[in-house]
Amino acid sequence: MKGLVYGGPGARSWTEIPDPAIRDPRDAIIRVDAVTICGTDLHILAGDVPEVKPGRVLGHEAVGTVVETGSGVGGLTTGDRVLASCISACGICRFCRDGAYGQCRGGGGWILGHLIDGVQSEFARIPFADLSTYKLPERVSNEAAVLLADILPTSYEVGVLNGRVRPGDTVVIVGAGPIGLAAVVTARLFSPAHIVVIDKAENRLQAAKMFGADTTVLAGTDDPLSAVRSLTADLGADVVIEAVGTPQTFELCTALVRPGGRVANVGVHGKPATLHLEDLWIRNLTITTGLVDTYSTPKLLDMLVAGQLDLGHMVTHRFGLGEFMRAYDVFADPARSGALKVVLAG
Amino acid sequence: MKGLVYGGPGARSWTEIPDPAIRDPRDAIIRVDAVTICGTDLHILAGDVPEVKPGRVLGHEAVGTVVETGSGVGGLTTGDRVLASCISACGICRFCRDGAYGQCRGGGGWILGHLIDGVQSEFARIPFADLSTYKLPERVSNEAAVLLADILPTSYEVGVLNGRVRPGDTVVIVGAGPIGLAAVVTARLFSPAHIVVIDKAENRLQAAKMFGADTTVLAGTDDPLSAVRSLTADLGADVVIEAVGTPQTFELCTALVRPGGRVANVGVHGKPATLHLEDLWIRNLTITTGLVDTYSTPKLLDMLVAGQLDLGHMVTHRFGLGEFMRAYDVFADPARSGALKVVLAG
Amino acid sequence: MKGLVYGGPGARSWTEIPDPAIRDPRDAIIRVDAVTICGTDLHILAGDVPEVKPGRVLGHEAVGTVVETGSGVGGLTTGDRVLASCISACGICRFCRDGAYGQCRGGGGWILGHLIDGVQSEFARIPFADLSTYKLPERVSNEAAVLLADILPTSYEVGVLNGRVRPGDTVVIVGAGPIGLAAVVTARLFSPAHIVVIDKAENRLQAAKMFGADTTVLAGTDDPLSAVRSLTADLGADVVIEAVGTPQTFELCTALVRPGGRVANVGVHGKPATLHLEDLWIRNLTITTGLVDTYSTPKLLDMLVAGQLDLGHMVTHRFGLGEFMRAYDVFADPARSGALKVVLAG
Amino acid sequence: MKGLVYGGPGARSWTEIPDPAIRDPRDAIIRVDAVTICGTDLHILAGDVPEVKPGRVLGHEAVGTVVETGSGVGGLTTGDRVLASCISACGICRFCRDGAYGQCRGGGGWILGHLIDGVQSEFARIPFADLSTYKLPERVSNEAAVLLADILPTSYEVGVLNGRVRPGDTVVIVGAGPIGLAAVVTARLFSPAHIVVIDKAENRLQAAKMFGADTTVLAGTDDPLSAVRSLTADLGADVVIEAVGTPQTFELCTALVRPGGRVANVGVHGKPATLHLEDLWIRNLTITTGLVDTYSTPKLLDMLVAGQLDLGHMVTHRFGLGEFMRAYDVFADPARSGALKVVLAG
Repeated sequence: MKGLVYGGPGARSWTEIPDPAIRDPRDAIIRVDAVTICGTDLHILAGDVPEVKPGRVLGHEAVGTVVETGSGVGGLTTGDRVLASCISACGICRFCRDGAYGQCRGGGGWILGHLIDGVQSEFARIPFADLSTYKLPERVSNEAAVLLADILPTSYEVGVLNGRVRPGDTVVIVGAGPIGLAAVVTARLFSPAHIVVIDKAENRLQAAKMFGADTTVLAGTDDPLSAVRSLTADLGADVVIEAVGTPQTFELCTALVRPGGRVANVGVHGKPATLHLEDLWIRNLTITTGLVDTYSTPKLLDMLVAGQLDLGHMVTHRFGLGEFMRAYDVFADPARSGALKVVLAG
Repeated sequence: MKGLVYGGPGARSWTEIPDPAIRDPRDAIIRVDAVTICGTDLHILAGDVPEVKPGRVLGHEAVGTVVETGSGVGGLTTGDRVLASCISACGICRFCRDGAYGQCRGGGGWILGHLIDGVQSEFARIPFADLSTYKLPERVSNEAAVLLADILPTSYEVGVLNGRVRPGDTVVIVGAGPIGLAAVVTARLFSPAHIVVIDKAENRLQAAKMFGADTTVLAGTDDPLSAVRSLTADLGADVVIEAVGTPQTFELCTALVRPGGRVANVGVHGKPATLHLEDLWIRNLTITTGLVDTYSTPKLLDMLVAGQLDLGHMVTHRFGLGEFMRAYDVFADPARSGALKVVLAG
Repeated sequence: MKGLVYGGPGARSWTEIPDPAIRDPRDAIIRVDAVTICGTDLHILAGDVPEVKPGRVLGHEAVGTVVETGSGVGGLTTGDRVLASCISACGICRFCRDGAYGQCRGGGGWILGHLIDGVQSEFARIPFADLSTYKLPERVSNEAAVLLADILPTSYEVGVLNGRVRPGDTVVIVGAGPIGLAAVVTARLFSPAHIVVIDKAENRLQAAKMFGADTTVLAGTDDPLSAVRSLTADLGADVVIEAVGTPQTFELCTALVRPGGRVANVGVHGKPATLHLEDLWIRNLTITTGLVDTYSTPKLLDMLVAGQLDLGHMVTHRFGLGEFMRAYDVFADPARSGALKVVLAG
Repeated sequence: MKGLVYGGPGARSWTEIPDPAIRDPRDAIIRVDAVTICGTDLHILAGDVPEVKPGRVLGHEAVGTVVETGSGVGGLTTGDRVLASCISACGICRFCRDGAYGQCRGGGGWILGHLIDGVQSEFARIPFADLSTYKLPERVSNEAAVLLADILPTSYEVGVLNGRVRPGDTVVIVGAGPIGLAAVVTARLFSPAHIVVIDKAENRLQAAKMFGADTTVLAGTDDPLSAVRSLTADLGADVVIEAVGTPQTFELCTALVRPGGRVANVGVHGKPATLHLEDLWIRNLTITTGLVDTYSTPKLLDMLVAGQLDLGHMVTHRFGLGEFMRAYDVFADPARSGALKVVLAG
């Protein structure tokens, strides 16, 4: 079969590789029907994630069809159409028993396209298949479902639920990439009074408005503090969600939040940030960090079926699996391409 | 009457000042029966709290007897013996309605000995007296009660409750001053499996053991990380409470906590700290900060009456009100005096 | 002035009574600008609430203008336009300190039109005015605001928040009177997947659809259990809100809820109900009861200003204050009049 | 091998039966090292649980040694010493993903000694062995561990945690059988100010005092209401735990709780109870029911290792497996035998 193989910093190829096979009784093999590319894949290609070794098949977000199951798989059968989630879960360790699958100590967590071969290929092995996949109802399209492999549960759990968004709140989302936009969609589920989105790209702010933001702030031009203060009687935002991953954006978040408010970090950081405790010690803040656990995925699927998640404009480009090299080019250059999420279908 | 008056950085005097008087119908005047000194008072004397102006009477922790009430005071009468709390509360603003009295926007918050004259004097004016004082049952001594003016609710709310200590947890407390020791006492209410205390003074670690810590770590000599790892199967602590207020101790806290754990900052900080988001973004941490709100004070009083708070060794030195100058000397030099809390009685 | 005076079971009159006066420094006097009638007022008139004595002015839901304040009132001045809430709060007792104003032990709770004269009159005395009233922003109309005196916070706190409605949930509301309809409006703030409303009046079910229910069940004709099971894969509803107040409707609620679900009772009951513990002991249910505390009123006001509460069709009839006798007739006969809420304006 | 076989109402025998065998890849077979009898087993023998058919091996609380594992078992190997819990969990269904193992829809829940053969036998088949067993640390004795198979997690989760016991609370426990006594032990983890235990047997009240109750009430002789009111300034208890299972005891619980308090039902009921909504609708109560989920078992094991659970006097009688008939006689007649828990060791 063919797969998208990491060849070291800067190098990727869509190339012939061996078919995957069951290695553990809890494995399943899927045929990949739809798959997408994550910003994290670009970080890997930049050489920023040294645990990923050359030869690794990338990708951790797919929809597929089960073609084989190990003897210990209890809930899946051949032919099942499933979401293959970014997080695998042994289901046995103390973290999995708490639903903290992202922190799995039994061999799971974020492993696909990271510590083992991923899903940007024609077929893929899914460990701990019972807890790492979700059967798809017929009326959910592959394209919608693949957005639930990572960006929807990540923005919902790590942003909206960790930030405890409540009806009537003012919510600020810093960063309008796919995760930030998914945070707009999922924050709306709690009926905040205001959703303010801050980004440095005008077209992403337009996308944010389309997804439901009522106020946008062009970073570098508009003043985020005065925008938030004018909406909140000078208090600051109830919840601020960081969806970029730089020291500057994180520090902006802690400046925008009201006393007693919450800062939910979703962004992947490569450097330390400064925490202004000389101001913040007295302000009753809650700051959270986190990798997605995917405990919300079944509920998000229910909401997708019920028509509650409007993801219509999230997929901007569509390709066949054989066009993986071009799809990466498009996704890696959003300023030119306008790409949000790209989907490749088998 | 006499009061302890701040005279600018380094200057304090026990001197004659005018008697306090009712200024607002919600005020009460108390005769001070017992009062203590806080580490914050030393910061003020060092000139670190510029909002405190020369001429200010210091102090925010007292027990007294009501001698006069304004016409709008509903729950107090002359002769009532009351705890005068470090936090005053208007009771009307949106923060007070949520029990977040420390963040009061209606003229309360931490004002005593800060923005208005405090309680280190023979008489004191207590604004918003209904919500800023607590009637004392007969069987509670002045000396025990005065510890509930600040250090008990602060350590309980901002440390133990914000940190969500649970039965069976491993709790680390960094700093064994009065607040850290009070955190040992109040953390025990939730039956953690281990309480680890870290400090650089051997005698304070001995005090920590007396209050209920099972493991102590001498900073600069013992290795805190290996101590915590050996108790937690290498995972890290469930809850870490910062009770010092320096960048180094805060950063130590974020290094000691397990994935999914909580860091509760109680220390008063004067400088920013570094937040190692490059490691922490993925670890599902919750970091909280806060000034005490004193919502727990009535319950702590109940527990004091029920004999559930063992504060026996917290008061190390006792003085008359006229000995205020000497009491400050003793409290300011704990390495020599061994002072934890000093109490002055009228 | 004139007021609507209870004259014993079945007897009411709009008649001349003495003007109210300040009795406690925390009182305020308001001129009543808009007022409504509650189902509870009908119960009182039926003689079902024996604590209400003949001579009592009824009513606990009004908007008014402050005309006088006691010396202990801190947050109001003459001319302020305020919501007079159904709940008064001393602000000092242990329940008020927890925000449980409805359970006030200091002389508050539901007292207006119950234990003291109410607001169905030209002027009214409001005890504990600081915590029992809410200043109204200019852009909120009297008619919308008066709905926040009781039915909105009641349905939101006692129904939706006690029931812990979550995104994607299936919510059943039994009873489509004003409270049940307000529960539809406030449940929607949490984006349930389904809102099922059960009532025996076809026109009220049509109102429920207008407010946002997606499924309606005509009691006595349709089968509620099969309707709920078909929406929930036979499991039952996540949340069931009782908004009628009879043993039969309460028992229906416990039959409709899924294992692990919540039953939130809002209805006012006059008789005991049967709790089928022989079935329910094993089902991990949470059943809550409650009188409104009005802790949510400030946030609901914010949401009203932000345009988040669509109350447009809740007021069906409008009268002048002088038409109180006729307004009661209309409100008491909804089958004929189609009345939901009636508003009388000064 | 031999097992304790139900022969229909009133009939039990310790008799020869076939050895268990692996039927599903997720099964394990254990040799039973220690096992106990539950009050529920007596109900089965009385014919009250019709789903249990003659021929069924009883028992759902054991410690054993793994002798065989199916191919899909990931976390156990032959020779492991394990706790076999009363609850089995598929780990895949929506309830298991939420940690609500007791409500498992995938074939688990309470099945041992109920829907399939149990553990009162020399060997036993444990379905879904990875999530239905807990590896035991060396320093935990069989006798202590077997108490964690049912009574400790049941009293802790369904009583103490559902009841949200908090420091300083007054907790009432109605019923001082093994579950009620375990509730005393686990309630103490949250440092309530008072634990009141009500039972009709004087010797069980003495046991309650030994486990940590400070007040006991002899049902039928003492007045529970006045006992609770005198401890709570007439308000009622913060938390009441029902551990009997009759309509009378449940109704007593709702009479003893304060406004805003919690009633946690643990008892197994065979008849409906009366819920006095005519009084309770206004009192802000929370009533919970539940079968144990065993999510707390790993933490309880940690606390057992840390010496935090004092279970020393819970096991009153010890037998060999061959003495099962006599053990049942002793356990079934506690008034004469004084039995709390009886343990049979292989």
